[in-house]
Amino acid sequence: MSEKTLSLLKTVEWKNNKVVMIDQTKLPNELVFVEYSDYIDVARAIKNLVVRGAPAIGVSGAFGLALASLQSKAATKEQLLSDLEEARKTLFETRPTAVNLAWGLDKIMQIAKEGKDVDDISFSIVKSAQEMAEDDIKINMRMGKNGSTLFDNDDTIMTHCNAGSLATVAYGTALGVIRATKESGKNIKVIATETRPVQQGSRLTAFELKHDGFDVSLIPDTAVGYTMANKLVNKVVVGADRVLRTGHVYNKIGTYQVALMAKQHGIPFYVAAPLSTFDMKSNPQDVIIEQRNGTEVTQIGDKKTAPDGINVINPAFDMTPPELISGIITEAGVAKPPFDVSIPKLFEANK
Amino acid sequence: MSEKTLSLLKTVEWKNNKVVMIDQTKLPNELVFVEYSDYIDVARAIKNLVVRGAPAIGVSGAFGLALASLQSKAATKEQLLSDLEEARKTLFETRPTAVNLAWGLDKIMQIAKEGKDVDDISFSIVKSAQEMAEDDIKINMRMGKNGSTLFDNDDTIMTHCNAGSLATVAYGTALGVIRATKESGKNIKVIATETRPVQQGSRLTAFELKHDGFDVSLIPDTAVGYTMANKLVNKVVVGADRVLRTGHVYNKIGTYQVALMAKQHGIPFYVAAPLSTFDMKSNPQDVIIEQRNGTEVTQIGDKKTAPDGINVINPAFDMTPPELISGIITEAGVAKPPFDVSIPKLFEANK
Repeated sequence: MSEKTLSLLKTVEWKNNKVVMIDQTKLPNELVFVEYSDYIDVARAIKNLVVRGAPAIGVSGAFGLALASLQSKAATKEQLLSDLEEARKTLFETRPTAVNLAWGLDKIMQIAKEGKDVDDISFSIVKSAQEMAEDDIKINMRMGKNGSTLFDNDDTIMTHCNAGSLATVAYGTALGVIRATKESGKNIKVIATETRPVQQGSRLTAFELKHDGFDVSLIPDTAVGYTMANKLVNKVVVGADRVLRTGHVYNKIGTYQVALMAKQHGIPFYVAAPLSTFDMKSNPQDVIIEQRNGTEVTQIGDKKTAPDGINVINPAFDMTPPELISGIITEAGVAKPPFDVSIPKLFEANK
Repeated sequence: MSEKTLSLLKTVEWKNNKVVMIDQTKLPNELVFVEYSDYIDVARAIKNLVVRGAPAIGVSGAFGLALASLQSKAATKEQLLSDLEEARKTLFETRPTAVNLAWGLDKIMQIAKEGKDVDDISFSIVKSAQEMAEDDIKINMRMGKNGSTLFDNDDTIMTHCNAGSLATVAYGTALGVIRATKESGKNIKVIATETRPVQQGSRLTAFELKHDGFDVSLIPDTAVGYTMANKLVNKVVVGADRVLRTGHVYNKIGTYQVALMAKQHGIPFYVAAPLSTFDMKSNPQDVIIEQRNGTEVTQIGDKKTAPDGINVINPAFDMTPPELISGIITEAGVAKPPFDVSIPKLFEANK
């Protein structure tokens, strides 16, 4: 296993005209890198959760199109655009509800359309995809620095799911804030929830924080109330899949109850999310929460842990209302309540 | 698989001078019965969680002593008592912190001491152990009837962990209340939490309720807040490992947070526990919550789901304070707040 800290290891990277990824399905047991030169393999990797996490998937899609442009034998711009459109569809269909995937693909397709000829387009796509990856890291580091001021020396910080290096190109969002807090010289501990059903907390967050030398403790999702009631937690920070302009936060199932319990115990609850995660148009009633496959709850790997044919309620996300949130950390600053005032101000300032 | 409903199937039973148990380690995949004629095998079964649940373990211990009295080659009362004492120790050491196990063993040892001779003692022990098993069912049925008045037609009832038939000789405590509610003609649905880390919710509660024809849905522990916020739950009922005279309830880890969320959403939260579960002497600060092995959280079966050497906080129980509890259901009636008044009254009335 590499001695490099995971905050510098890249979840997805462009290297010698290939896409290199950490195979997250092998974590926490093995740190394995996979290398793709065919966009179809990148699509398969996204579908099979070799790579996951909204920002990481967006960049992976862009890299997939970059590969497709190199693979294309097109002689004309029109033919190349047609090849790219075919690749875009294949890549998009792997995770159709992921906002960042569509965002990454659309951004690259726009650049392709603006290109002069085949060589110019190919060059621009590869360059832009690499810039997207670099921007992701820069944004996370700015977000981390902004968030680090909210945490104190000797804090024990709880996090839910994985909003870490492994969900982004590197450094992470919520875990980026935790990394930046440590880098600022503060002594902190972390409590990671297991995050059933897919266990990104134990498999990924515990893995990457331990790998980077953090003092991290794992708890089952049932022990959130216990650790808070017993004063083992000072603050909470989580990521987000979508943030509305009203401060309603959609994130991994279980986030809402962590926030509710934090409020009850007087523990500040923070969300870390880049501005690209904000949905400034939708209202809470517009957001549909997708249900995932029940087998995630009824078995773990091949091991069945529930009777056959049982009903399962397995929502992917839940909604945390603004009144439970102490602050939303972005690369443009920290929004504080009331969010319907502070969030639009951040966007204004970032223009 | 038997067509008999599980509320009539017995978790542990005395049959032709043998102890017959459902092997709960095989659930939910197989319904297997095991038969023991040696008390050492009963001790091993308790230790290996073939049988679990406070009331079921108490009765199993008593049956273990009944087997020991039949196995003994003692010619004198003194020698038989010595053989029984050896068996008591072996049985007790399997789960030393289980209050009901000590209770069941001590009760049988007392009866042995009061016996006239070897034959009389042996006869009395076997009879008393069988009566303990029958009493457990009767108490659960009375508790169920008392509790059923608290639930309405078309209620969806959430339960945590397994306080079911499989935790008792038959019928269950919290699930006994649910069974009695259905038997009273009310149409109800049940939501079972998975209950990590040992998954008694998915493995046992979902299994026994589905087996008995209930409309039961399984959720991950992370989805409690979601189901409550989305009005999918009307009431909650759970069991208890210990209830103090002040109404402080110790139960499976995660119970406290279910109660806290129920309170936030205006959902009544009930506890079902026989009077034998009440500890009228201790104060909350006296009760030490045991930590269980971290491997319960870091792996499932042989499958590792967390990095090696990670710290784990894995408390067996948590404490739900009285202000979150709407009522405590017992065989002697339902205690309502203030519990420090109503609980002593129940004991008075039951004298």
